[in-house]
Amino acid sequence: MSSKFYSKENLNFLLHDVFPIDELCKKEIFKDHTPESLDMILDAAGTMSETQLRPILVEMDNKPPYIENGRVKVHPKMRDLMQTFGKDGWISMSAPHEFGGQQVPFTVVQAVGFVMGAANYSTMVYPYLTTGAAHLIESFATQELKEKFIPKMYSGDWQGTMAMTEPGAGSSLSDLTSTATPTADGHYLIKGQKVFISCGDSDAVDNVVHLMLARIEGAPLGTKGISLFIVPRLRPKANGELVFNDVNTAGVFHKMGYHGAPIAHLIMGENSDCHGYLVGEANKGLSYMFQMMNEARIGVGCNAVSIASAAYYNSLDYANIRLQGRKVTEKDPAKPQIPIIEHADVKRLLLFQKAIVEGSLSLVMEATTRYDRWQASEGEEKERNLLVLELLTPMVKSYPAEMSIQTTSAALQCFGGYGYTKEFMAELFFRETRIHTLHEGATAIHGMDLLGRKVMMKNGMATMLLMQEVMEDIEKAQKYDSIKAYAIGLGEKLMKLQEVTVHLVSVAQSEGPEAYLSDATLYLELFGILAIGWQWIKQGTKVEELKQAQSKNYSAEFLQSKMYALQYFFEYEVPKVDGLITRLMSKNRVTVNAKKEEIL
Amino acid sequence: MSSKFYSKENLNFLLHDVFPIDELCKKEIFKDHTPESLDMILDAAGTMSETQLRPILVEMDNKPPYIENGRVKVHPKMRDLMQTFGKDGWISMSAPHEFGGQQVPFTVVQAVGFVMGAANYSTMVYPYLTTGAAHLIESFATQELKEKFIPKMYSGDWQGTMAMTEPGAGSSLSDLTSTATPTADGHYLIKGQKVFISCGDSDAVDNVVHLMLARIEGAPLGTKGISLFIVPRLRPKANGELVFNDVNTAGVFHKMGYHGAPIAHLIMGENSDCHGYLVGEANKGLSYMFQMMNEARIGVGCNAVSIASAAYYNSLDYANIRLQGRKVTEKDPAKPQIPIIEHADVKRLLLFQKAIVEGSLSLVMEATTRYDRWQASEGEEKERNLLVLELLTPMVKSYPAEMSIQTTSAALQCFGGYGYTKEFMAELFFRETRIHTLHEGATAIHGMDLLGRKVMMKNGMATMLLMQEVMEDIEKAQKYDSIKAYAIGLGEKLMKLQEVTVHLVSVAQSEGPEAYLSDATLYLELFGILAIGWQWIKQGTKVEELKQAQSKNYSAEFLQSKMYALQYFFEYEVPKVDGLITRLMSKNRVTVNAKKEEIL
Repeated sequence: MSSKFYSKENLNFLLHDVFPIDELCKKEIFKDHTPESLDMILDAAGTMSETQLRPILVEMDNKPPYIENGRVKVHPKMRDLMQTFGKDGWISMSAPHEFGGQQVPFTVVQAVGFVMGAANYSTMVYPYLTTGAAHLIESFATQELKEKFIPKMYSGDWQGTMAMTEPGAGSSLSDLTSTATPTADGHYLIKGQKVFISCGDSDAVDNVVHLMLARIEGAPLGTKGISLFIVPRLRPKANGELVFNDVNTAGVFHKMGYHGAPIAHLIMGENSDCHGYLVGEANKGLSYMFQMMNEARIGVGCNAVSIASAAYYNSLDYANIRLQGRKVTEKDPAKPQIPIIEHADVKRLLLFQKAIVEGSLSLVMEATTRYDRWQASEGEEKERNLLVLELLTPMVKSYPAEMSIQTTSAALQCFGGYGYTKEFMAELFFRETRIHTLHEGATAIHGMDLLGRKVMMKNGMATMLLMQEVMEDIEKAQKYDSIKAYAIGLGEKLMKLQEVTVHLVSVAQSEGPEAYLSDATLYLELFGILAIGWQWIKQGTKVEELKQAQSKNYSAEFLQSKMYALQYFFEYEVPKVDGLITRLMSKNRVTVNAKKEEIL
Repeated sequence: MSSKFYSKENLNFLLHDVFPIDELCKKEIFKDHTPESLDMILDAAGTMSETQLRPILVEMDNKPPYIENGRVKVHPKMRDLMQTFGKDGWISMSAPHEFGGQQVPFTVVQAVGFVMGAANYSTMVYPYLTTGAAHLIESFATQELKEKFIPKMYSGDWQGTMAMTEPGAGSSLSDLTSTATPTADGHYLIKGQKVFISCGDSDAVDNVVHLMLARIEGAPLGTKGISLFIVPRLRPKANGELVFNDVNTAGVFHKMGYHGAPIAHLIMGENSDCHGYLVGEANKGLSYMFQMMNEARIGVGCNAVSIASAAYYNSLDYANIRLQGRKVTEKDPAKPQIPIIEHADVKRLLLFQKAIVEGSLSLVMEATTRYDRWQASEGEEKERNLLVLELLTPMVKSYPAEMSIQTTSAALQCFGGYGYTKEFMAELFFRETRIHTLHEGATAIHGMDLLGRKVMMKNGMATMLLMQEVMEDIEKAQKYDSIKAYAIGLGEKLMKLQEVTVHLVSVAQSEGPEAYLSDATLYLELFGILAIGWQWIKQGTKVEELKQAQSKNYSAEFLQSKMYALQYFFEYEVPKVDGLITRLMSKNRVTVNAKKEEIL
């Protein structure tokens, strides 16, 4: 069954009305673009997604990557796709002009990623990782390294990766043990193992360029001794010839889903001939890598929404055509059956998905807009956007990742027994999205990032700035009867959130950091729900403004549909914060107190 | 990795202390049993599970059933297993002596199912379905039919099934269209299609006996015109010879999980030679089938707990051996890494699972005990047990089914990136358990059953009886400081539940049945959480009684572990009811109001 996988109308609404892209186009670095030219990019992404990415989704799922003669084989179509991603500028679109890019705003880059990810998540991992890796080289490497690697990456000939995780160093990056030994020739000799390297090896490309973290001999322990290296699978000699760089593929992980993209286990330097090229200064690798990680974290949130969107439209299609049962008020079995979308509980399953998908996508756009403004501005404005972006990132990454498990499950539920089978695609989306709470930092890590770092950074400046803006939006919303009560309610919950924060800070003082952070994941969830509530208030206000202006840009159904999703969110999701608050205010430290011998 | 998949100690605690099985053994129909003899059955189930069922779990997952020459092929080991299930009395254990059974209490039957299901869910579906089908024949068929079919079913030679669902009649059973035409020879000619027939065809058995719903020509429309038939794949002639009964296998569904058991699409009577034998009276089929369905619903809840238990112990093992990171208070990277179970958030993920698994299993036992008492008693006691059982059944079926999606997901999360791979079994359990909110009635159906029927039946008599008992348990618990506050809190929430019920009844009167039932799924969730809270109060009271009695039956860690799980449930899960109550008391009918054109 081919089905719609995203709403173009909603993307228009977000990019032209809620986060007006024309304001971004006025900025110097984006001045070559207009809302129209950016729409054309999105249209082209839609077409490519429909005609080239979606058609191979099920095929890819049925044929996961495998190892042949020590190399990873992926779906044969992937090589053509990478060439297209390169040739048509998808990999380089956000790069500066000097590197052949188009300086497309990050907001549009993520919108494109959203569309492609909704069509076929695996396929977009290849180009997007390559972009992220190339950006790192652009930002921190020498001119020579830039010239050597970037063009081939942007052309789609070479894959880029992020090579951080090791068998003994996952969430705890400070424990990584890969080593780099300096040589007289300027390069380093690399030795180590990396696991879970997305697109770490594949026959879709001619070469793979790993942006790899390792320790230079004698470097300090912990995160302060980590450096960043370019470690290609094949190293280009001065004459351009490629020689094997002692990067061996030890295996490919057999995953539950997103089978189109391989995740490799790599061994570097088994034969002591793996060259690495230092990026930037020694021992500063982790801070550089955070550039790529922060972009990737927003990307993960965005792609969790992608898959949730695909699952939503898939189930919505089905709910409109599948006949089953009758209204509870209709007792005559001779009457024809009705489409299941007419049952209240199926509508609940659908509106739940819609409220999460469109609320989350809006939050993603909120973050990407900050990113663009941070890039495009100076001074106080730059600082402000960065602070709010940093505060929002844990929510942007984790809320969609966690919730998409539930929304794809709700989508599956709409199909009844068929949802559990491969008849439709429901079970596929449920499997695919489960990766997102794991990669780019497990959810707990983001909870600790939010509560342990972000909320308090610069004396709570980021939180203050964000709250100010939210309060302004709540104020604006109160002009409209349809959302006034929800807006006021949100304001009250935000006050509660602040009480919780103050309470937790007192816990930090009285009981120490472990107790303070023990429910950071719940704090993240609480903050996330309220952040999405904020997005719905913004969207609702915009809907009312459009109605008042008698705009003809959107159908009446579209606008009404938005308001139902908003109501759903405030009626069913926002009340969940009360339970979280109760827990966060409790004095019982059950998870801290229980010793490991007492959990059995 | 072979790992513990259930807690024998916990099963002892439930069966000997919380729901004392020795009281059941005093009843006439169970008088041949003693707690010791029943323990031996459970021990044998444990041994068989460990040595024969668990070892083939991953193999079965890797080799799903397939069609060859129009027949379903399953794992080759399954035929031996069915023979063992038959020979060793696992299929017939609950049958009356007159059919060669041992009259084992349903509580023990489900406990055995729990153990086997935790080892390898697919494998236990074959015998348990066969038992259910045989029971139906026992209860309602003629002596001749009993003699013809039951012995071969109990011996494991023939499979039993429940053949209800049709392509156009899933949740809406009243729409089934399979027909039965009477013949002069006494049998009926059956024509129709059935889908999602678990174990509907396989080479693990010599024959399959379908307990099939169909309409006799001229029968009333709807559920009042449904009759029950025995429809074997091969029909036994008078001389015992088996001839093909025109039951064709059209296909086997490719499922997301529980690959060991086939789900078939069957076509009956393509060549007008499919004989069916009427069970009981014409047009009463659905009420007969409900006997099997009600047992199966408890079984589904029980097996959702099984899989959740397997996932829990799998993740607990891993959390104890996987080293990663340090305490948040430890900043020295030279210090060794610690097992992840020492991180508060990992303990949260573990205690969450434990609280749900042990709370749910307790609720299952609460229900099975009622079943046994209903079977074993007369008059008012019989009636009371049946009423409470009927009220509990939707929760017993749905709470574990829904929550096991979350607990297996939490288990997976404990493994980090490895959880998404086939390296360990985490992703397998996550896939397996997802069936349980779908089969034996999707969750929404049980919500409507609870709110639309059970809560109000006999003027709310069942609810009243249940509340009385819960209140007595709450009263008893208040003797112990460790649970007093939680018990009082639970009582308060139960009062709120009653307010919600009263409110919804007023909605039924003022707005009609659609509005009344529109959030029945949430009502079910709310009731479910409080039912589990009740089980924890019962368990906590028992722990305190055992401590007071200085019982040596359980380790101190076991009892302490129980108390932490109890605390977890009241600290993290019970607060969730507040959000549900807020929603259920709201006047906004967003899911009822949204027209299908307005969800897009």
